[in-house]
Amino acid sequence: MSARREQRAPVDVATLPHWTQVEVRYGDLDVQGHVNNAVYFTYFEQGRVSFFSELRRLGQAGGRDSASSAGDRGEPAEVTLSPADITFVIVSASCRYRQPIVGLAPVYVGVGTGHVTHATVELRYAVCAAPRGMVFATGETLLASVDLATGRPRALPLWSREGLAQLIGA
Amino acid sequence: MSARREQRAPVDVATLPHWTQVEVRYGDLDVQGHVNNAVYFTYFEQGRVSFFSELRRLGQAGGRDSASSAGDRGEPAEVTLSPADITFVIVSASCRYRQPIVGLAPVYVGVGTGHVTHATVELRYAVCAAPRGMVFATGETLLASVDLATGRPRALPLWSREGLAQLIGA
Amino acid sequence: MSARREQRAPVDVATLPHWTQVEVRYGDLDVQGHVNNAVYFTYFEQGRVSFFSELRRLGQAGGRDSASSAGDRGEPAEVTLSPADITFVIVSASCRYRQPIVGLAPVYVGVGTGHVTHATVELRYAVCAAPRGMVFATGETLLASVDLATGRPRALPLWSREGLAQLIGA
Amino acid sequence: MSARREQRAPVDVATLPHWTQVEVRYGDLDVQGHVNNAVYFTYFEQGRVSFFSELRRLGQAGGRDSASSAGDRGEPAEVTLSPADITFVIVSASCRYRQPIVGLAPVYVGVGTGHVTHATVELRYAVCAAPRGMVFATGETLLASVDLATGRPRALPLWSREGLAQLIGA
Repeated sequence: MSARREQRAPVDVATLPHWTQVEVRYGDLDVQGHVNNAVYFTYFEQGRVSFFSELRRLGQAGGRDSASSAGDRGEPAEVTLSPADITFVIVSASCRYRQPIVGLAPVYVGVGTGHVTHATVELRYAVCAAPRGMVFATGETLLASVDLATGRPRALPLWSREGLAQLIGA
Repeated sequence: MSARREQRAPVDVATLPHWTQVEVRYGDLDVQGHVNNAVYFTYFEQGRVSFFSELRRLGQAGGRDSASSAGDRGEPAEVTLSPADITFVIVSASCRYRQPIVGLAPVYVGVGTGHVTHATVELRYAVCAAPRGMVFATGETLLASVDLATGRPRALPLWSREGLAQLIGA
Repeated sequence: MSARREQRAPVDVATLPHWTQVEVRYGDLDVQGHVNNAVYFTYFEQGRVSFFSELRRLGQAGGRDSASSAGDRGEPAEVTLSPADITFVIVSASCRYRQPIVGLAPVYVGVGTGHVTHATVELRYAVCAAPRGMVFATGETLLASVDLATGRPRALPLWSREGLAQLIGA
Repeated sequence: MSARREQRAPVDVATLPHWTQVEVRYGDLDVQGHVNNAVYFTYFEQGRVSFFSELRRLGQAGGRDSASSAGDRGEPAEVTLSPADITFVIVSASCRYRQPIVGLAPVYVGVGTGHVTHATVELRYAVCAAPRGMVFATGETLLASVDLATGRPRALPLWSREGLAQLIGA
């Protein structure tokens, strides 16, 4: 495992731009009294949904100022990410567990971006006791933009590129 | 992402020695009609519990033939893995999603081992439509053996080493 | 609570006609080491999906022998219940917990029908250690048949009525 | 079903004294795009944990003013309900679904008490769009106080009786 890890820059928690509070549910804890390992990916997901909602809000605000491209003209105007809007699929996901989450206090999920291509976005996550505070876990997901009708890759939607530009200068 | 992936041998589905059937629950599917990304780690967990139960059975059978080491003398004799027996913590977990799981037919989780040290075991997984069949996802978890009282690393329990020797000649 | 309970016949486990094996997942157990109370409704759901799949199979076999009614002509012929086929909504659900489920051995969910009207079906459940064996819990759900396009009540689909007639002489 | 329902006073949402915000997770939604029926019991659980934490806080504050009884002297002073403190088991649970929850906006769970005996508490719940607002569902759980060592009924802990007296004059 060590060779692999040295290849990658670890998630830099201090620079993650977007933070979301996530409730720890009683049922998230397993027999060991810790939040179950699979649930961390649900926490990432909660952070991701919030992150994309923010991207969309920023991207649409930016899009109204600039000339909008033809490919995005049909997109709905609302800023809330409804599940049906999701046109990304998850290619891979990973998590490194540092400290177990043992109580029911809420946690905070930080989200930022890693490598971005014309059709993929790597997201990086941290689950902390407070924004940029004590780290329970870090992780990554690689997302690909797809055409839901055909399942084939397509360019990232304009709102996400505009939003990324606003949020992190990407 | 590509640099990292080339560093590692992909999971070789054909050689995974232990297979477990896992039910797909209606609630595992999300709004997109696919099994949710976090649920794959629950499927890995079901495979892992079954794998360790098998290791324990094999290891204890082997242990009765050989002289048992002092460090494991206090371990319970039952072959069923009860949750309280679990003395491993998960250090990291990852999944690569290849094909979405879209129906309620059961899936099959294959489990094998990667790198093993005196206190850690890397497990490798595949989620398939049939044992060694069409692949929905592959993944890994790194497990560390810990002393639950102190939280500190300790050697893998004898039953797991004996079981690994029986199962895969490790 | 007692007054209410005496009003209703308890679920008669011995007469439930349809039984499904359901896996207990490690993550179903909570901090107390018992299957979490909410998960029993997921077990009911697994039994219900299997029950409706059986109804459909029986109902379609019967439907082919008899003259089919106009309202059901457009229904797909496959016997597997895909999630998209589900045209029932759950009006109410209840569970009485008798013995905690403490291990990872599979459980068995029995399903039968209570009161049936032209647009509703009451289902009755038991979760047992073996079919008609030691009882962990019993419960009921009231389902209403709805037109998914309008959300309004509609008669039970023909396949369900035919299937009920085949399965339990209803 | 109707006979049973008329027997019981419906949950009076306006009078529920304790309200908790609960996040709707993306994974709570099922294929139909609605929060899955089993998840409502998890929402009740989140409200219940918060309710008992409040009871404990109130009960301990009250207990400090009055002479505390011998039976509760050993109880911890912290006001946060840790899972290990839970000495109630759930005897029964029920839910009536009124409107589907279709988005990711948080919901609000109201909790109050129904019939209380020396060893049992009936809790009543509502899941609403806002405290005392549009109702998605109502429900009840019957809880019994047990001695965890023996599994036998025992009187409600003093903190819960004191807390109930403070909160609702029970």
